[in-house]
Amino acid sequence: MSETSMNGPSMTGAGERLEIGAAEYRQRRERLGARLQEEGLDAVCVFGPVRVAYLSGFFYSPTERPIALVLTARGQLAALLPRLEVSHFQQQGPELDDLAVYAEYPGGGEGLHPLSVLRALLGRMGLLGGRIGADLDGYEHRWGYRGRALSSVLGQPVRADVALIDDLRMVKSDAEIALMREACRWGDCAHRLMQDAIGVGGDELLVSHGASLAATRELLRELGERYVPKSREGLPANAMFIRGANTAHPHGLHQAGAVQAGDVLVTGAYGVVGGYESELERTMIVGEPSAEFQRYFGAMLAAQQVGFGALRPGRTCAEVEGDVRRFIREELGLDALVRHHTGHAFGLEGHEHPFLDLDDLTVIEAGMVFSIEPGLYVPGLAGFRHSDTLLVTPHGSERLSLYPRDLEALTVPDLPA
Amino acid sequence: MSETSMNGPSMTGAGERLEIGAAEYRQRRERLGARLQEEGLDAVCVFGPVRVAYLSGFFYSPTERPIALVLTARGQLAALLPRLEVSHFQQQGPELDDLAVYAEYPGGGEGLHPLSVLRALLGRMGLLGGRIGADLDGYEHRWGYRGRALSSVLGQPVRADVALIDDLRMVKSDAEIALMREACRWGDCAHRLMQDAIGVGGDELLVSHGASLAATRELLRELGERYVPKSREGLPANAMFIRGANTAHPHGLHQAGAVQAGDVLVTGAYGVVGGYESELERTMIVGEPSAEFQRYFGAMLAAQQVGFGALRPGRTCAEVEGDVRRFIREELGLDALVRHHTGHAFGLEGHEHPFLDLDDLTVIEAGMVFSIEPGLYVPGLAGFRHSDTLLVTPHGSERLSLYPRDLEALTVPDLPA
Repeated sequence: MSETSMNGPSMTGAGERLEIGAAEYRQRRERLGARLQEEGLDAVCVFGPVRVAYLSGFFYSPTERPIALVLTARGQLAALLPRLEVSHFQQQGPELDDLAVYAEYPGGGEGLHPLSVLRALLGRMGLLGGRIGADLDGYEHRWGYRGRALSSVLGQPVRADVALIDDLRMVKSDAEIALMREACRWGDCAHRLMQDAIGVGGDELLVSHGASLAATRELLRELGERYVPKSREGLPANAMFIRGANTAHPHGLHQAGAVQAGDVLVTGAYGVVGGYESELERTMIVGEPSAEFQRYFGAMLAAQQVGFGALRPGRTCAEVEGDVRRFIREELGLDALVRHHTGHAFGLEGHEHPFLDLDDLTVIEAGMVFSIEPGLYVPGLAGFRHSDTLLVTPHGSERLSLYPRDLEALTVPDLPA
Repeated sequence: MSETSMNGPSMTGAGERLEIGAAEYRQRRERLGARLQEEGLDAVCVFGPVRVAYLSGFFYSPTERPIALVLTARGQLAALLPRLEVSHFQQQGPELDDLAVYAEYPGGGEGLHPLSVLRALLGRMGLLGGRIGADLDGYEHRWGYRGRALSSVLGQPVRADVALIDDLRMVKSDAEIALMREACRWGDCAHRLMQDAIGVGGDELLVSHGASLAATRELLRELGERYVPKSREGLPANAMFIRGANTAHPHGLHQAGAVQAGDVLVTGAYGVVGGYESELERTMIVGEPSAEFQRYFGAMLAAQQVGFGALRPGRTCAEVEGDVRRFIREELGLDALVRHHTGHAFGLEGHEHPFLDLDDLTVIEAGMVFSIEPGLYVPGLAGFRHSDTLLVTPHGSERLSLYPRDLEALTVPDLPA
C-alpha cells in the first residue's frame, strides 16, 4: 500500500483501520455522563441516528423503526432496537447493561408501539419519574413512522435538547481530525478526476459519477482493508457539478443535458472516511472566461481569502461572518449578491452546529472544523462559490482541502468531452 | 428515442416529461384543503421536505434551514423560505399568495429565528389563534438545526399529525403509477448490468456503482430530456449488494474485500423517475448452491409467492402479513428466522405508511404500491430475501419489477470478475 497520494502523504499510520476506536466511543459516553450530572439529569434518550453512531460506533440505515440509546448519569448504557438490527448492533456496538427489543414497527403482532417498549425499559432501569433528557422528544418522523412525543408516552416532562450531545461534537478529537484529513484527500482526488473528464457535450451525472467511481477505485487500491464502510449506500469519494444559469441557485438540482462551451460550473466533492466527511467546492469555467466572469470570480476568491484569515480561536462565529460580509459590502460593493452565510461546522454530517453566521455567537476553538464558502449569485448569469475544509488550529487555521483555487487552474478547455 | 427496453415497452407516452404536472399538484392541495375542512382546521403548516415536494412540486436539498408551506382551508398557499432557495422555488413551485423570506439560519443578522418569521407570516394571514395543524410540531432537527416546537413558538396548540398529508399519499394516481412503473424498468436494468458484472474477486462498491453508472447512461440515452432530475445527488438507476455472512443482517452495511466463490449475495436495485422510486431485491449465489442454500432459497421464494397472492383490495395489511407468517410458521416451520414484516408502501420515499405488519389495520386499496419481501435470516450463514414492487389492482395485484426470481437465473458462475 502506498503512503503517498496526490495531496501529500497520508496522515494516519499504515495498517490502522480508518475508524474511531472503542476507547474513544467510551470517552464520549463518559463526557456525556459528566454533562448529565452538570445538568442535573438522571439519564438521556438518544434518537438521532448520527448521535447514536457518535456515542456507540453503531452505524446503520435509519428507517421507520425507532432506535434509541439510553445513557444514565451513573454510566449505564441501554438500547432500544428493532429485532432486525440486534445482530448488527452486537457486531458493531459496545456491551450493553440492558437491551429492549421490539418485534417490528408498527408492532409486529406485539400490539405495542416501540416507544411503549422504550417506556418499559426506562421503567425497569428505575428512571421513570426521574429527570430525563433527550436529543429529541421522540423519534423523528422518518419514512412512514408515526408516533407521539416521548414526553407524552412517558407522561412526564422530557428535557429535549440536541445540544446535550451536539455540543460535545463541536471540537474534533485528533482521531476525528485524522479521518477528516484523509476524507479531504479523497475529495480532492475525486474532484481532480472529474475536472479531467469535463468537456463540451459531457453529461453532469455521467461525468461526475464516473469520476467518483474512479476515485473510489483508487481509494480502495491504496487503503485496502484500512477503509471501513459505515453505510449501505454511496461511495467514499464523490464529485458532482451543476452548470450554466442553474449555478445561480446556491443549491441547484441536477439538470439533464450536455455541458456547453462558456458554461460556468459550480462543483462539490467530498470523501467519507470512518463516517467523517470533507467539503470542497469550486467555481469553474468551460473555455475562455469573460471579463464579467473574471470580475465575479476574483471577488469571490478574495472574499474566501478574507474568511480564511478571519477564522481563529477566541473569536465568535459572528465575527468571522462579520469580517467577510463587511469586505463584500465595503470593498466589493456586492452585498446584494449574497444568499447565505460564510460557512458551517461539519464532521459526521454535511452541516453541523455552529454556523459562521451573524447570529451565531459560539466562540471558536482549536479543533473545530468549518467550511469557508462565501458565495456571490448573479441572477440569470451564474453563481460563484469555492468551499474549503478548514481546521481551527491553536493560532489560526489550516486548510485541509488542497485543491487549486485560482482561475487558471479551474479553466477547462472547451473541447469535446 | 427507443420506446422499448429490456423489460418491455415504456408505459408513458413519448415526448412527455417524466414528472407530475402542475394540475396534479393543484389537485393534491385541493384534497388537502378539503381534509382541513373535514378536520375543522383553518390551516396546516408543512415542514417535511417530501411533503413540501408532494404538495408543490418544489424539490430541494433539505438542510438546517427550515422550509414550510402554509395551506389554508380556503385554499390560500404561502411559504417560508430561506433567501438562498427563493429563486429555486420560483423556478419550480406554484404561485404563492404570500411569501416570508428569512436571511439565513440561525438568523443571518436579522436576530430572528426562522420559526419566528413563520409566526409573523401566520399572523398577517390572520391564522394566529385559529385552529392550526401541521405534519410535525416544528422543523425536524436536520443537520445543525436547533429550534423549539411550533406550538411553543406560537404559544398555542398545534395539531401535529403526519397523517394529515401522508394519508393522501397512500393511493397513487395514474401519473404516479406510470412513474413508478418506469422506475421499475431502470431498477431491473441496473440489476441486470450488476449481475452481469459480478464475479469472484469483484468489489461490492466498484461492481455495483459501475452497473449503476452504466444503467444511468442507458436511461439518459433512451429518455433524453423526458428524464427530469429531482435531486442534487444520486443516480436515477441504482444497484448494490452485500455478501456472505453479512447478508444475515437484514440491513448489513457495505464491506471492503472481494466476492468469494460460494458467497450468498443479497442485492438491492431501484430507479428514481420524477422523484418516485421502485424496489427490487434478490438473493443470489456465486457458484453451485449447496443443498442447505437451496432449501432456504426455496422456502423464501414460496413465502414471497404467498405474499403476492395475499395482496388485494379490501384486506387489511395485517391479513396479508398474517397469511405470510402463517405459511412460514406452519408450512415451513421457520418462524424463528423471521426478522421483519413482509413489506411496506413506498413512492416518493423508500418506505411509506402503511406497512404489511400484524399491527397495521389499514385497508388495502387499488392504487397502493407495496414491496413484498418476507426474509429468512440464518445467523452466521446468510440472509434470504427477494423484494418486488407490487401495484394493487382492482382485483389483486400486478408485479411491476419483472426481474427473474428463480435460483437458476440468480446463480452467478464462480469465475473471475
